[in-house]
Amino acid sequence: MNPEAREQRVLEAVEQRRVLVNDAIDELLPTSEPERLYEASRSLLVAGGKRLRPALLLIAAEALADVPPLAADYRSFPTLDGEAAEGVDVMAAATSVEVIHSFTLIHDDIMDEDTMRRGVPAVHEAYDLETAILAGDTLYSKAFEIILQTDAPAERSVRALDLLATTCTRICEGQAFDVAFESRGDVLPEEYLDMIERKTAVLYAAAAAIPGVLLGADDETVERLYQYGIAVGRAFQIQDDVLDLTVPSEDLGKRRGSDLIENKQTIITLHAREHGVDVDRLVPEDDPEAVSEAEIEAAVAELEAAGSIDYAREMARDLVAEGKAHLDVLPENEARGLLCALADYLIERGY
Amino acid sequence: MNPEAREQRVLEAVEQRRVLVNDAIDELLPTSEPERLYEASRSLLVAGGKRLRPALLLIAAEALADVPPLAADYRSFPTLDGEAAEGVDVMAAATSVEVIHSFTLIHDDIMDEDTMRRGVPAVHEAYDLETAILAGDTLYSKAFEIILQTDAPAERSVRALDLLATTCTRICEGQAFDVAFESRGDVLPEEYLDMIERKTAVLYAAAAAIPGVLLGADDETVERLYQYGIAVGRAFQIQDDVLDLTVPSEDLGKRRGSDLIENKQTIITLHAREHGVDVDRLVPEDDPEAVSEAEIEAAVAELEAAGSIDYAREMARDLVAEGKAHLDVLPENEARGLLCALADYLIERGY
Repeated sequence: MNPEAREQRVLEAVEQRRVLVNDAIDELLPTSEPERLYEASRSLLVAGGKRLRPALLLIAAEALADVPPLAADYRSFPTLDGEAAEGVDVMAAATSVEVIHSFTLIHDDIMDEDTMRRGVPAVHEAYDLETAILAGDTLYSKAFEIILQTDAPAERSVRALDLLATTCTRICEGQAFDVAFESRGDVLPEEYLDMIERKTAVLYAAAAAIPGVLLGADDETVERLYQYGIAVGRAFQIQDDVLDLTVPSEDLGKRRGSDLIENKQTIITLHAREHGVDVDRLVPEDDPEAVSEAEIEAAVAELEAAGSIDYAREMARDLVAEGKAHLDVLPENEARGLLCALADYLIERGY
Repeated sequence: MNPEAREQRVLEAVEQRRVLVNDAIDELLPTSEPERLYEASRSLLVAGGKRLRPALLLIAAEALADVPPLAADYRSFPTLDGEAAEGVDVMAAATSVEVIHSFTLIHDDIMDEDTMRRGVPAVHEAYDLETAILAGDTLYSKAFEIILQTDAPAERSVRALDLLATTCTRICEGQAFDVAFESRGDVLPEEYLDMIERKTAVLYAAAAAIPGVLLGADDETVERLYQYGIAVGRAFQIQDDVLDLTVPSEDLGKRRGSDLIENKQTIITLHAREHGVDVDRLVPEDDPEAVSEAEIEAAVAELEAAGSIDYAREMARDLVAEGKAHLDVLPENEARGLLCALADYLIERGY
């Protein structure tokens, strides 16, 4: 399948599930008292988002159960072994993962002092710091409440919840490393890859593995799904790093080259540094606002010349291939094909 | 028993458990990578604290299991029905509750712009805002990881976890109400009592009820333990409000009258307002730093004269009596006596 047709297929599959996920968010995370807190908690969720992670979870459930896409009811989904006669509400699990994602965005925006998100002001801008901290905290516990509503057998609920809690701890660790790396000039590529695994990839991994846990897949299958998520999640982050340099600001929804300006370490700058580029001097650091488009253009040209952007693209491609290879543990079916296509899409997307 | 002997007995019981809880914190929440994040996460826990909530949980377990205080191993505690042959690690549950408490302190100090806590700088002062947010977030997920390590049957783990998650949501709601009340002049006593139930009492209630869930007590017993916690937790908060006005700053560890200065609503100011006191004028609000000890003294005298402080004291006493009455569901034993004494202590303590 050519990339355009594949992208079309993936976007359609994600969109079909996005509508259902949005309904579930409204049902499982309704506005409640105190109203301002719940409004703030829901504001980013309501503002948009592709719902990639919940879509991944739902498609992984379909691949595991070997059912055609959208054929089974996500709210009472058949288990692999007939446990839980009423079926499992995999949509609750998908919602929980999206709620965790939204919590991390709210707190990350405070920490990174970002003012915009999904085309609307960040929560700490639209409300205030106190409300943004509390809104994130509320989503955090709500996500744990929601993932306990799947009607899965208790042992599986416990395992899914443990996976979600460990994932959240890893995300916090990843964010802490990310912040710390900004003031370090000696970050190693392995350290960067470990950081993005924690910060970004583990939530993809949890999304892929949790339906395995809830539906009663064997340990090997759960582990391979997890590794699929780690690989494609890392690829997703590396592609984000590439896009930050190569996509015009108006398409990106934020300033092109913002990672360079904010002195964020990426696999691109790490490669460049190792190959003799004076990364710290690529853009002037004294006045971030004053960096011109031409300066960004010149910096990107230097990174291109050092082969650093191609290096990142190749690494993302390798990771996607590695991720897809893990899917051989699944039955051959349409949903598995979608998981493959989704992995490809993550590094082929333009923004 | 006279109040002095009772206080002595309670403090000794809490202290004996505090040492064990501290060991468990070191074991279940070790310093890990990234070091700065875990140091910040552990800093308040290491700085001190009486460990009232975990002590309450451990004593409730002993009362339920009808064993003499400190006679059974908290790490492999006997269940009521012989489920979980190896016993249940109630210490993990106790640690989890203290970790949640510590998370709320870190985030609350940011929101309330408090600079000191437990005699040391608040985490956002000792580190920075980013680290304090992340440290709280890390403790949050760690608490959920830790409460899954009790080796209780899965159904009970799920219930305990659900109770903990709901508790955290309520705490966030309570904090949001507390902040909102600061700019409202028409808060009703019922609203205040609902706010402190969420903000403070639910964590006491969870501490009391969780051992019931984990050890297999019947629903009625779990519910009564929960209601005991709600009543004594409310009483604890009301006593805090009284102490804020009546204890010298040097004993209080923070400025006497800080609630008045910060325009915090308490049951005392609500009562005074209803009885004709112009609460907003009790202390000058334009420059909190400039409020003198004499001005606080005069404000307290006015509240005393309106009967507002006695009203609060009586309400706390009634709540303690109500809380203790719920304990009749437990077998008569020494640990149950300790739970009664603990309830009395919460409103007899001087600071």
